[in-house]
Amino acid sequence: MNILGIVGGTGVVALLFALYASGKINAFKVENNRVSELSGIIQGGAMAFLYREYKALVPFVIIVAALLAWKISVPSAICFVCGALCSALTGYIGMRVATKSNGKTAFAAMHGMNDALTVAFMGGSVMGMTVVGVGLIGVVAMYFIFQNADIITAFGFGASSIALFARVGGGIYTKAADVGADLVGKVEAGIPEDDPRNPAVIADNVGDNVGDIAGMGADLFESYVNSIIAAMAIGAMALGNGGIIYPLLLAAVGIISSILGTFFVRVKEGGDPAKALRYGLGSTGLFMLVGTFFLTNWMFSDLTLFYAVLSGVVSGLLIGAATEYYTSGDYSSVKEIAAASETGAATNILAGLGVGMKSTAIPVILVCCAIVAGVFFGGLYGIACAAVGMLAITGMALSVDAYGPIADNAGGIAEMAELPESVREITDKLDAVGNTTAAVGKGLAIGSAALTALALFVAFAAATNLQSIDLKDPYVMVGLFIGGLLPFIFSALSIQAVSRAAEKMIEEVRRQFREIPGIMEGTGRPEYERCVDISTAAALKEMVVPGVMAVLAPVLVGYLLGAAALGGMLGGSIVTGVMMAIFMSNAGGAWDNAKKYIESGHFGGKGTSAHAAAVVGDTVGDPFKDTAGPSLNILIKLMSVVATVLAPLFAM
Amino acid sequence: MNILGIVGGTGVVALLFALYASGKINAFKVENNRVSELSGIIQGGAMAFLYREYKALVPFVIIVAALLAWKISVPSAICFVCGALCSALTGYIGMRVATKSNGKTAFAAMHGMNDALTVAFMGGSVMGMTVVGVGLIGVVAMYFIFQNADIITAFGFGASSIALFARVGGGIYTKAADVGADLVGKVEAGIPEDDPRNPAVIADNVGDNVGDIAGMGADLFESYVNSIIAAMAIGAMALGNGGIIYPLLLAAVGIISSILGTFFVRVKEGGDPAKALRYGLGSTGLFMLVGTFFLTNWMFSDLTLFYAVLSGVVSGLLIGAATEYYTSGDYSSVKEIAAASETGAATNILAGLGVGMKSTAIPVILVCCAIVAGVFFGGLYGIACAAVGMLAITGMALSVDAYGPIADNAGGIAEMAELPESVREITDKLDAVGNTTAAVGKGLAIGSAALTALALFVAFAAATNLQSIDLKDPYVMVGLFIGGLLPFIFSALSIQAVSRAAEKMIEEVRRQFREIPGIMEGTGRPEYERCVDISTAAALKEMVVPGVMAVLAPVLVGYLLGAAALGGMLGGSIVTGVMMAIFMSNAGGAWDNAKKYIESGHFGGKGTSAHAAAVVGDTVGDPFKDTAGPSLNILIKLMSVVATVLAPLFAM
Repeated sequence: MNILGIVGGTGVVALLFALYASGKINAFKVENNRVSELSGIIQGGAMAFLYREYKALVPFVIIVAALLAWKISVPSAICFVCGALCSALTGYIGMRVATKSNGKTAFAAMHGMNDALTVAFMGGSVMGMTVVGVGLIGVVAMYFIFQNADIITAFGFGASSIALFARVGGGIYTKAADVGADLVGKVEAGIPEDDPRNPAVIADNVGDNVGDIAGMGADLFESYVNSIIAAMAIGAMALGNGGIIYPLLLAAVGIISSILGTFFVRVKEGGDPAKALRYGLGSTGLFMLVGTFFLTNWMFSDLTLFYAVLSGVVSGLLIGAATEYYTSGDYSSVKEIAAASETGAATNILAGLGVGMKSTAIPVILVCCAIVAGVFFGGLYGIACAAVGMLAITGMALSVDAYGPIADNAGGIAEMAELPESVREITDKLDAVGNTTAAVGKGLAIGSAALTALALFVAFAAATNLQSIDLKDPYVMVGLFIGGLLPFIFSALSIQAVSRAAEKMIEEVRRQFREIPGIMEGTGRPEYERCVDISTAAALKEMVVPGVMAVLAPVLVGYLLGAAALGGMLGGSIVTGVMMAIFMSNAGGAWDNAKKYIESGHFGGKGTSAHAAAVVGDTVGDPFKDTAGPSLNILIKLMSVVATVLAPLFAM
Repeated sequence: MNILGIVGGTGVVALLFALYASGKINAFKVENNRVSELSGIIQGGAMAFLYREYKALVPFVIIVAALLAWKISVPSAICFVCGALCSALTGYIGMRVATKSNGKTAFAAMHGMNDALTVAFMGGSVMGMTVVGVGLIGVVAMYFIFQNADIITAFGFGASSIALFARVGGGIYTKAADVGADLVGKVEAGIPEDDPRNPAVIADNVGDNVGDIAGMGADLFESYVNSIIAAMAIGAMALGNGGIIYPLLLAAVGIISSILGTFFVRVKEGGDPAKALRYGLGSTGLFMLVGTFFLTNWMFSDLTLFYAVLSGVVSGLLIGAATEYYTSGDYSSVKEIAAASETGAATNILAGLGVGMKSTAIPVILVCCAIVAGVFFGGLYGIACAAVGMLAITGMALSVDAYGPIADNAGGIAEMAELPESVREITDKLDAVGNTTAAVGKGLAIGSAALTALALFVAFAAATNLQSIDLKDPYVMVGLFIGGLLPFIFSALSIQAVSRAAEKMIEEVRRQFREIPGIMEGTGRPEYERCVDISTAAALKEMVVPGVMAVLAPVLVGYLLGAAALGGMLGGSIVTGVMMAIFMSNAGGAWDNAKKYIESGHFGGKGTSAHAAAVVGDTVGDPFKDTAGPSLNILIKLMSVVATVLAPLFAM
């Protein structure tokens, strides 16, 4: 098929762009031994973790593939393995480049803002383009081989399960290291952030990559391919071949738009990097809409589906804006949390929880609007297309997202390598900008998770031949309760895992400060490796239970209570999963920025009791926003896709 | 109808028992002027609040009644008003007796444990028996007059709406006063709990009555009548007249069992009051089961429905046991939170949140078991009967529940009146026992809320003639999202309301300490009344938005998106409402007891940094467990009952 070739070709173009960006980064030489060395250490730690994580997941992938081959079909098993491999591949490439870019960004910042932005953004765009390139090529290849839109849901299953483990594992790794480095190093020993005397400092910087780069990459890879796969599955039912091709072409348009958009990310010396990134995002969105307009008109001689996609893109961006409103220090919510810190930690916590809970309203209502608009313009298929529309610009959105942690890491390296103060100022500014623009990525992630899960839910219902999933049926209600329960249990597990891992890290850092002579004077070398080991071991151990639970729950409910109850379970998990994801992500983000707001001089600034209270909120928020919250987005899709893949077992 | 007469007569018996208990309390004379005076002040404050609260609700009741008369029917309007009045009446009677019993309990404690237990328990049982007596008489009278099981759902509507306002208002009142008294009095000024020099001490003690007595009474009144009404509505469809009568007779059996059970609450000097209360509860449960066995056999010559009721009673008690497991200092969860306090407030908060989230599992699974068993033994009607079974022993459960705050208040009066140390020891012991036995009441409240909401949901579906509420229908999914959202918004509103009110209280208490000469030396009299006023005004103002939102949400969704979406909304609100209610209640309870566990000498006891961290957790938990959490149980039923009453407007 010619069109499949074009779509796959666009995927190849994305990879070529990633290669080009990677080449540009490679061509940039770091002329500072300490920076190179530190970057190398961080890269070593990160790649070692990735290697051990993947190794730990091999038995899981083999067992699931064997079960799929046995119970469902060999093609499903192949798709599953390919999905898992592609997810791992994007994680590997993205992480490799990101951990190479961090030191180069630090060094580039010595030349000025524009160089630093370029290197960091190029690093992010390798990740972004790799995700969409590998994702689209993978989906097209699977469809080309198996010629069946249902079978390739197993590709999404593979991607989702790796993503969940990567998000949970990465989230535990980074937060354990972060809390350990902060609580003992900064608070107890009184040394600054990213100080090389802190034994957990390398683990902390490795964690940023493991959590924010690899975790986020796997997360968006999963979102991207599942939105396309769900739309293909529904499209096959609704419109036949055209319904399968349309989402693929949407994705292709998104890739071209993203590549074009990267050329708009330019900043003059003294210019505003935030503006540059917004230009990049905005132009990409515009190209996407224009392309979709012509594509839709060409394919259907009718624009209704264009409006469905439009509603997805617009609501995704508005969710991003709402996220920024609730979590940025420029607006009232964060300022209220900062003000509440003046009466202590308890009022800070209550204010943050209140903001987090309240912040669910706008995103959920926007998701509802997207659903209604999607249905109005294209039935159930319209919902799926809205999700694809949101995620088609993942190439750009992820570039912007991934650039933030690279800049953050560059700042850490600058600090450790004792580069001039001006370097840290540039990387701090880039990092701060990254935090705001990341809100857009978060918005797309949340909105698309809800819509994709819904689309997968529809695919599940079709695959099981369920006439209805009737809430009046008590078994559906039981399923709804169990599904509603899972995000709570999952969150509890991941929060407690972070606490346990952090506790071990705290003990180890305290031990090193106590036992290594000259560590505080900078003459004794801290045993960085032991802290890296602790984070690695804890992450690998603690990711198992939540990950396996997510895969097993739909199987158990399906077997024990039947397909209708399983449908109820998916519905329940989508609802509480979306709520809890928004609640925890936004509460965590708001606490973080309330602390930064105080640190920037409000309410007395650092050293006051208000600041101490805000630090408590920030620490509580860490596993909220970086472990439990984002994992829930994956959880709800993973469970939906497991149910869809296994639907033949529960079919009526 | 003869049987209606018997059932109504049982309600009268309950009221006669309440009168008898009240007489016994009256006969007990307090021979201590200070105790009488303090009890009078607290009573005055509490009754004044109740009066103003009811006055504020008059316009609400009139407007809703007028709308019901206009849009639905005059009988519905009458039922609604009667439900509201009955709820107000039970609140009034219960509060009057409770605020009379507190001083008498304090004085009785001078004679020893048995006298104090008797007076406090008698006070609680007036509340308990009034609730079931008025509830059952009200339902029977409405059914006798209108002869229609659907119309009397409006009686439940009246009861629910008053209950929601009472719970939210009472919860805000008590927590504002509590936080104000604690943070300024105990922490800043360093004076002990319940010290008469604390300006907020009276408001704090009034708050215990307003929140724990009147709020809880209205709550259980609402649960009780709605479970009966829902069962009658479903029973009418399923079994005709017998299906209407059976839940009424179950309630009657429950009342007789509760009265018999009270005679088992006896403690010898030096005996264990916990044992006495458990005897009372256990014997009541046993009588209830035996009575149900014979009743079911007699009515249906078949025992299947007995097993449905049995599953309700057993799962309710097990949920209570699970609640105790997660919130009592005797078990690992609370100990873990206490241990986490050693590394600071952040780890204490994370541990508490983790426990709260995790604690949802067992109750929700038990609710699911009750649903499955109910359906297995009696279809949808079986679920409703399981809920009635849980709540039939409300007379006893509430007596045991309400006795706790009376003992707590008695302790406060003993402190303020400077009674001998032994008095405080006895009231403290009674209070501690009350906290544990209250877990049973909480279990029944949560379990029955889920089942009753489900039964009302079924009644709603029947009343709207909905063939199915299909999750595959995107509008149902939109409803599900909106419904799932409401408990989050509602919780945010009530938590933020408590924070605002507490802040005002903190300022006022600080002002008094600053401006009233001789206040710390005990020579200047604090202006207690101003603190009472602040709590009252804040509670009345802040209860409006969440209360009105709960009534309006189903109306709006029904009008804008139709009956099926409204069904989805109810489903969504039930699921997240139940989750959030359990999460917040248990997290709050666990934090509270973790603090007490440390205070009892573990991890260094009072004055350590671990204790300070635990106080933070306790303060965060206060609005969780006493305002937001329990209100959600009412919210989900109120929305279901509103939808059911208004079903004719949205009928297909």
